[in-house]
Amino acid sequence: VKIEVFFTPAEAATVDLEGRVAVVIDTLRATSTIVEALANGARGVLPAPSLEEAIRVAQNIGRSEVLLCGERRSLRVDGFDLGNSPLEFTEDRVGGRSLVMTTTNGTPAIVAGSAARRVLIASFLNLSAAAEAVASDGGPVAVVCAGRERRFALEDAICAGALIRRVAAAAGLDEGGGDWNDAARLAAEYARGMEGSLETVLRGTAAGRQLIEAGLEADIAYCATLDRHRIVPELRDHQMTL
Amino acid sequence: VKIEVFFTPAEAATVDLEGRVAVVIDTLRATSTIVEALANGARGVLPAPSLEEAIRVAQNIGRSEVLLCGERRSLRVDGFDLGNSPLEFTEDRVGGRSLVMTTTNGTPAIVAGSAARRVLIASFLNLSAAAEAVASDGGPVAVVCAGRERRFALEDAICAGALIRRVAAAAGLDEGGGDWNDAARLAAEYARGMEGSLETVLRGTAAGRQLIEAGLEADIAYCATLDRHRIVPELRDHQMTL
Repeated sequence: VKIEVFFTPAEAATVDLEGRVAVVIDTLRATSTIVEALANGARGVLPAPSLEEAIRVAQNIGRSEVLLCGERRSLRVDGFDLGNSPLEFTEDRVGGRSLVMTTTNGTPAIVAGSAARRVLIASFLNLSAAAEAVASDGGPVAVVCAGRERRFALEDAICAGALIRRVAAAAGLDEGGGDWNDAARLAAEYARGMEGSLETVLRGTAAGRQLIEAGLEADIAYCATLDRHRIVPELRDHQMTL
Repeated sequence: VKIEVFFTPAEAATVDLEGRVAVVIDTLRATSTIVEALANGARGVLPAPSLEEAIRVAQNIGRSEVLLCGERRSLRVDGFDLGNSPLEFTEDRVGGRSLVMTTTNGTPAIVAGSAARRVLIASFLNLSAAAEAVASDGGPVAVVCAGRERRFALEDAICAGALIRRVAAAAGLDEGGGDWNDAARLAAEYARGMEGSLETVLRGTAAGRQLIEAGLEADIAYCATLDRHRIVPELRDHQMTL
C-alpha cells in the first residue's frame, strides 16, 4: 500500500490527492478536539478557514442553532461559544449540537486534504480506530499533518508515524519500503519507542510549550492519551460526522 | 544559540531570516556539487532559478566565459556543459572557471535563504568546516533544506541534524532545548547513529532511488563521504565563492 506523509498542508498541496484516503492530524489540538466533540454526541463539525467565514456560516445556519468554536493564539475567540480545548467539549455542552470550528492550523489542513476521495480525522485519542479504517479502506494513503504556522510540528509527525505503523500492522504489511515516502519512513521510525512517553514528548514541542504558557497544560495530557475513543470522524458534504 | 531547521524552502519563507546565518543543504546533489566545484578551483558558482535565467545569465557574461551546469530529472540539460554530478566537477573541467548553475531543488533553496545576513553552503562533504563556520559566526542559525519537489527529503534532514550536532559541539552547547525548533530537535536526534551508515541510508531515500534508476549510483557514495573538504562556500553578490 502506498503511504505518504506530508508534514505541512503546503506539501500535501504539491500532489494529486484524488483517489487517496487522506488522514488529517492536528494533535495539539484541533483533531483531538473534533474526535472528543463527536465522541460526546455532537451532530457534526463544520470546518471554516477563517474567523469571518466561521461567523458567516454560523449566521447563515442561525447563530443560536450552532456552537461557534475555535482559537487564535491558543485562546477562545471573543464571542465564540467554545475554544479549542477538548476538555470543553463535554456531552453537556455539545451533545446533539452542530459545531462550526476554525483553528490556526487544523482547519487549513482539513481544507488541504479535502481533494482526497475520503478525509478521515485522527489524533492519539482515536489512533487505532483510525488506523483500522484506513487499512480496511485499502486505497493509497495520504497523511496530512497540520504542522504549526505552515512549518513542521513534531507532535503531528509522531502521531502520523504511530498511525501508519498501526495501518501496516492491521494490513499485515512490513513498515517502510518503496511505497512509503521519506516523511512516512522517518515518522514511523521516530514514533517507535515514543509511545510510552507521549505526554513528556508533547510537552517539549513548540506547540506544547505554548499551551503550557497559555495555562492549558491539562490539554496536553488529554491529547496524549492513546485510544480513548473507538470512532473515526469523516468529512462528508463539508461537515465532519461519524 | 537559536537554531532552526526548515525542511523545505517554503517553510523557511514563513520566517524573517534577517540577522541569521543561513545554511543551505541539498545533499543529493546540488550543495555537494557546489562544494566539490569550489574545492577543485572554480572561481565562483552563480545560482539561477530557471533554465531560461541560467542561459540568459550565461549569454550576458559571454557564453564561452562560463560553464553552464545543472539538471532536470537528475540529468544534464541539453546544451549545458556539465550536469549536477560532483564527479564531473574535476579540477581539469572547472579550475579557474565561473559556473552558472540551475537545479530542481538546490537553487530554489539558495534563493529562499538569500534573505539571511549570511548564506553558507553545506553537505556531508564539508560538514565539519560548515559547522565550525556557523559556530564561530555566533548568530542565530537557520538551516534551509532543499527537500525534493517542495516536499520533505530524508537525506537533507539527516545532513541538517548532523550539522547542528557539530555546531552545538563546536560552541560547547547542549543539543536541543528551547532555542531549537521542532525540526532541529528531530533532525539532530535522528541523525545520531546514522553517520556510520550514510551511504546505505542515502541509497534508500526517494532521491537516492531516483539516482540509482538514472544510472548515477556513484554520486550517492560520493555525496555520503564525510568531511572530504575543509571549505565553506558562501553566497556574496549573487555568487557562491570561498
